[in-house]
Amino acid sequence: MKSDLDLLIQERGFDAIVVMGSAHENPAMAYITGGAKISSAFILKKPGETALLICSSMERDEAAKSGLRIATFDDYHFLDHVRASGNRFEAFIRLYVEVFQRNNVSGTVSFYGLGSPGTSYLLLKRLQELLPGVTITGETETTIFDRAYATKDTNELIQIRDVAARTNRVMAETVDFLKSHRARANRLIRGNGSPLTIGEVRQFINRRLMEQGLEASEGIIFAMGRDGGVPHSRGEDDQVLETGRAIVFDLFPRQIGGGYFHDMTRTFSLGYATPEVEHAYRQVMQAFDAVVNDLSAGERGEHYQELTCDIFEEQGHPTIRSKPGTTDGYIHNLGHGLGLEIHSRPRLAMASDEVLEPGQVFTVEPGLYYPEKGFGIRVEDTYVVEADGTFTSLTPYPKDLVIPIQDAE
Amino acid sequence: MKSDLDLLIQERGFDAIVVMGSAHENPAMAYITGGAKISSAFILKKPGETALLICSSMERDEAAKSGLRIATFDDYHFLDHVRASGNRFEAFIRLYVEVFQRNNVSGTVSFYGLGSPGTSYLLLKRLQELLPGVTITGETETTIFDRAYATKDTNELIQIRDVAARTNRVMAETVDFLKSHRARANRLIRGNGSPLTIGEVRQFINRRLMEQGLEASEGIIFAMGRDGGVPHSRGEDDQVLETGRAIVFDLFPRQIGGGYFHDMTRTFSLGYATPEVEHAYRQVMQAFDAVVNDLSAGERGEHYQELTCDIFEEQGHPTIRSKPGTTDGYIHNLGHGLGLEIHSRPRLAMASDEVLEPGQVFTVEPGLYYPEKGFGIRVEDTYVVEADGTFTSLTPYPKDLVIPIQDAE
Repeated sequence: MKSDLDLLIQERGFDAIVVMGSAHENPAMAYITGGAKISSAFILKKPGETALLICSSMERDEAAKSGLRIATFDDYHFLDHVRASGNRFEAFIRLYVEVFQRNNVSGTVSFYGLGSPGTSYLLLKRLQELLPGVTITGETETTIFDRAYATKDTNELIQIRDVAARTNRVMAETVDFLKSHRARANRLIRGNGSPLTIGEVRQFINRRLMEQGLEASEGIIFAMGRDGGVPHSRGEDDQVLETGRAIVFDLFPRQIGGGYFHDMTRTFSLGYATPEVEHAYRQVMQAFDAVVNDLSAGERGEHYQELTCDIFEEQGHPTIRSKPGTTDGYIHNLGHGLGLEIHSRPRLAMASDEVLEPGQVFTVEPGLYYPEKGFGIRVEDTYVVEADGTFTSLTPYPKDLVIPIQDAE
Repeated sequence: MKSDLDLLIQERGFDAIVVMGSAHENPAMAYITGGAKISSAFILKKPGETALLICSSMERDEAAKSGLRIATFDDYHFLDHVRASGNRFEAFIRLYVEVFQRNNVSGTVSFYGLGSPGTSYLLLKRLQELLPGVTITGETETTIFDRAYATKDTNELIQIRDVAARTNRVMAETVDFLKSHRARANRLIRGNGSPLTIGEVRQFINRRLMEQGLEASEGIIFAMGRDGGVPHSRGEDDQVLETGRAIVFDLFPRQIGGGYFHDMTRTFSLGYATPEVEHAYRQVMQAFDAVVNDLSAGERGEHYQELTCDIFEEQGHPTIRSKPGTTDGYIHNLGHGLGLEIHSRPRLAMASDEVLEPGQVFTVEPGLYYPEKGFGIRVEDTYVVEADGTFTSLTPYPKDLVIPIQDAE
């Protein structure tokens, strides 16, 4: 959690870290600033010291909300550097050098945040040349932020439980909305007799999310038939909802303006389900229940992916373990942590040695995909690991495959 | 515009470019893919050739919407590279090397997109070591994408005009909403007599944006009194709307899910305006009108910032030109281009040698800020430069300072 950052910095042998970029869509920046809306900033943090946030003087009020130490680009003579160097890139480099020197930074400094890869490469290469006493680096696998994000503190868990409750509410409202329609010739119709499209359902969901203070910043998957069999297909807005076809509804909104995510999936079939879909649904639920019954603090994330592959393979399905690259059967990993990012640690995945521990929040989402047969199925809850090592689902919404739909007239 | 990219690549002496990262909140990626929702991709583009998009096999359907040549990480043996190298970072480097070799990439390659600065630094440094025949670089000032973004093609302008019309509609609806309230003891009250807060206004705006297919991805500025005097303050949600105070309402939404922006600002005073605010408002409008009357294709962006400073200084206000670092008076640049990014080229700013030309879309937004006196004023329209070199405002919404408010009972 956030209070572990100092220790994590020291464990990796870093003497300081720098976080760069806008606070917008920049989780590392949002994490340290607590969500202050700053358009361009530079954060320097040494272990044991409050971070220093350097921003435009125009953003000083917003920056002050972070509770960090604040300085402005003017305090570090940005305009003088522009005048002396003749360009903004060089001016920023000189500003960084001044920041490092005036704050006595030496040793190894690791960089985070967001930027254009080519620009970052040139910037840090140049900074390295100008600061021979400093070793500039970054992280390439699990970073100190990934480690810190993985376990949530009390304040974060309050927000995460709240987002979960709101997301479950929107799921319930959406099912009620679907139920309020009638079927005619296998198609859902509205009160005025016109067909109901996926685009209209998506609009309904977006309105309900907003009323709950949430936003689908990463989109919404509402994918019917073959589209549901291709995990990253979002579903086509002009498609009319039909009875008897599997619909994968994956809802993963966050707090409006950037914040904590929830992630849940239900698979529905309107009116009735075909025997083929019903059978596959029971198989997915068998895997889901087996994983949930086996959840145990101290166990590795990889174990649950292996367990899921065991079950699906025993049922006769190909998996990415038995048939790498398959687009049929079980074709993804079991779950992922989430927080300010939709995908973070721990990973319940192949080659994950991460261990389940208190404070973590992660998904369990087995699925079966048969695009050629015209269906996909996925069921997903988000779990929190409690302080006592027990597991609580934050996704209590029921898991019924069939949504009853009345026929018109 | 987009069709200029090949020429721009060659002009800079690049033999190829690479764009990395998720398509989400990554304008360079969204620009090349046309908005396909891909969570992780690598694009290689040589001048004169259709770009190659390499993504996860799970995202092949979504990737196909881009119209680019598609390959998957599997096609480039990602899993073999993971097995051989033992870690994903090294596996990606080997994948990139394979992509470069199989596609005969040599010469200078410039990198774009989005990534963590430290990770990008290590990745490109290592890639440079493994590819001695290639020079890896990036851009540090106006990039080829900045150049391409600056002028819009027909398809982009259709979308931009549409977003503008919708944004003006939300502005009008918000003013109607404010007018539907009554004033009691200088505070706006709702039908039930409870006070109207900025938070409630913001909710109203967000709902109306959604109905128009827009989202306030970068927030909304609705800042009253002193907050309006600090340009980047967003306004405080728990504040009650009061009559006779200047409100800076800056609305800059984009198409839902990522897309083109509009940007407009009006300053309002509810019921009446104080003589001080009215006077300053007239001065801002004087600058606004002078700039608009002077707009001319072929003129440099800097000229309009100089003109604005001339006018404000003549009126007796400090400016960032006459008093660098000032937080009173005219304290920012005059305008900026916009498109898939809220801030792009051309800049109507100090030290901008960019020239106004057909296809550009940019803001004109003079303002005066006196936080200690408790007010700020800004007026902003977005302009398009037509093919014949004339200028059209995309922001026809009226510029009346005072919104009439009836007294309660």
